[in-house]
Amino acid sequence: MCQLLGMNANTPTDLRFSFTGFAERAGHTDQHTDGWGVAFFEGKGLRHFVDHQRAVDSPVADLIRSYPIKSENVIAHIRKATQGEVLLENCHPFVRELWGCYWVFAHNGDLKDFRPRLHAQFHPVGSTDSEHAFCWIMQELAKSHAGVPSIAELTLTLKELAAHIAPRGTFNFLLSSGQALWAHASTQLHYIERQHPFATAQLSDEDLSLDFATCTTPADRVAVIATAPLTRNETWTAIAPQALHVFVDGQCLAH
Amino acid sequence: MCQLLGMNANTPTDLRFSFTGFAERAGHTDQHTDGWGVAFFEGKGLRHFVDHQRAVDSPVADLIRSYPIKSENVIAHIRKATQGEVLLENCHPFVRELWGCYWVFAHNGDLKDFRPRLHAQFHPVGSTDSEHAFCWIMQELAKSHAGVPSIAELTLTLKELAAHIAPRGTFNFLLSSGQALWAHASTQLHYIERQHPFATAQLSDEDLSLDFATCTTPADRVAVIATAPLTRNETWTAIAPQALHVFVDGQCLAH
Repeated sequence: MCQLLGMNANTPTDLRFSFTGFAERAGHTDQHTDGWGVAFFEGKGLRHFVDHQRAVDSPVADLIRSYPIKSENVIAHIRKATQGEVLLENCHPFVRELWGCYWVFAHNGDLKDFRPRLHAQFHPVGSTDSEHAFCWIMQELAKSHAGVPSIAELTLTLKELAAHIAPRGTFNFLLSSGQALWAHASTQLHYIERQHPFATAQLSDEDLSLDFATCTTPADRVAVIATAPLTRNETWTAIAPQALHVFVDGQCLAH
Repeated sequence: MCQLLGMNANTPTDLRFSFTGFAERAGHTDQHTDGWGVAFFEGKGLRHFVDHQRAVDSPVADLIRSYPIKSENVIAHIRKATQGEVLLENCHPFVRELWGCYWVFAHNGDLKDFRPRLHAQFHPVGSTDSEHAFCWIMQELAKSHAGVPSIAELTLTLKELAAHIAPRGTFNFLLSSGQALWAHASTQLHYIERQHPFATAQLSDEDLSLDFATCTTPADRVAVIATAPLTRNETWTAIAPQALHVFVDGQCLAH
């Protein structure tokens, strides 16, 4: 299995604190060592980093820990391979373009029995069940809407698609088009919303604290979504099995 | 205008020497300072780095200069904006998926009069003429072939498509699907093929030399393609205006 990390904020926000704790799980506090990746939206643009080395000692992960990339939507993934070899093309998150937007997807779970026919324009490059499911979601979104729909319409369509896939295995996923971030839980996914007044958070996986009041304004709102809570002194909310949540401007909108 | 750098090799090869000289042109020896990017194929997988900072002092470019990423096909670009703002989504190279392969494209030039209708699945995310032309090429490739064609067939189709676009402006470009690298010249594009016996090369843009014999085997073959020659002591070949060359396994195949 793998682990997921997502962030959705109402202002470009630095992920280094959360990523530092998360990357510890790729070899130190846990064994998700079969590659990793992260995608940061900056407006409509995207920075996409993947590496088949462990995130604890990948030079690319060093860059992410030290370079303050600010983003409103981020999806990261550390992999423990179940299906598909340890190859660069099998590292999440995956990216495709639809309606002139980049779409980013990462999955934690296993979809042994889900290999639907891909009859349209989206095809996997690697051999994972995850990328196959992502291509199917993109295919069905493209069929369902002629152009970019509203976030509410997209959420309805995604709920139908997730409900179709979820019975075929374990399907925790994060998806973003840069406008919003969708999080679907199957077995394990948690989130936290941070806003004014900001407090100090302590990482669970490393001896590191950050007082968010020192690096935010009172108007900032940030939601962080992770397979398992990343901090030890905050209350994270578990997303119920088979629920799809949508995060916009740092808040969880639809329950 | 911008500058292009490409590499095609018969074995995974480190681009750091060429990239170091090329990146000097993004603020030191020349003024291509409106962002940059590079994409490295590793098998079917892709590492794609873009930054809207200057390549001479971007932390991501530091990583590329220091981390020996080995690849058989690389495309890099430093930008001097003509159309489209200085934004991450306007940084080349651009990436799309077709037939289960990633396609990477970078352009040097200006296509003021080329905005064909995009009626299929490829749409630009940014606002450059270059990404629009790339989406049109992808659309036409998808219409011309039902699945992945041979490199020879692709080259024929790409010649027709390039001949259609080139009269609308300046169209130097590099394109790769990880199997081959295509280079089209409109005004300025040069290449060099290196093979055994390897010699020492001296960068034009920085006081740096490398004896390729120390880091190659006699079986290695590498072609490097660049807007302007990157070394001062080797003979680079200019690609004739309106010619499309295809590089496979470190060699220029079709003239």
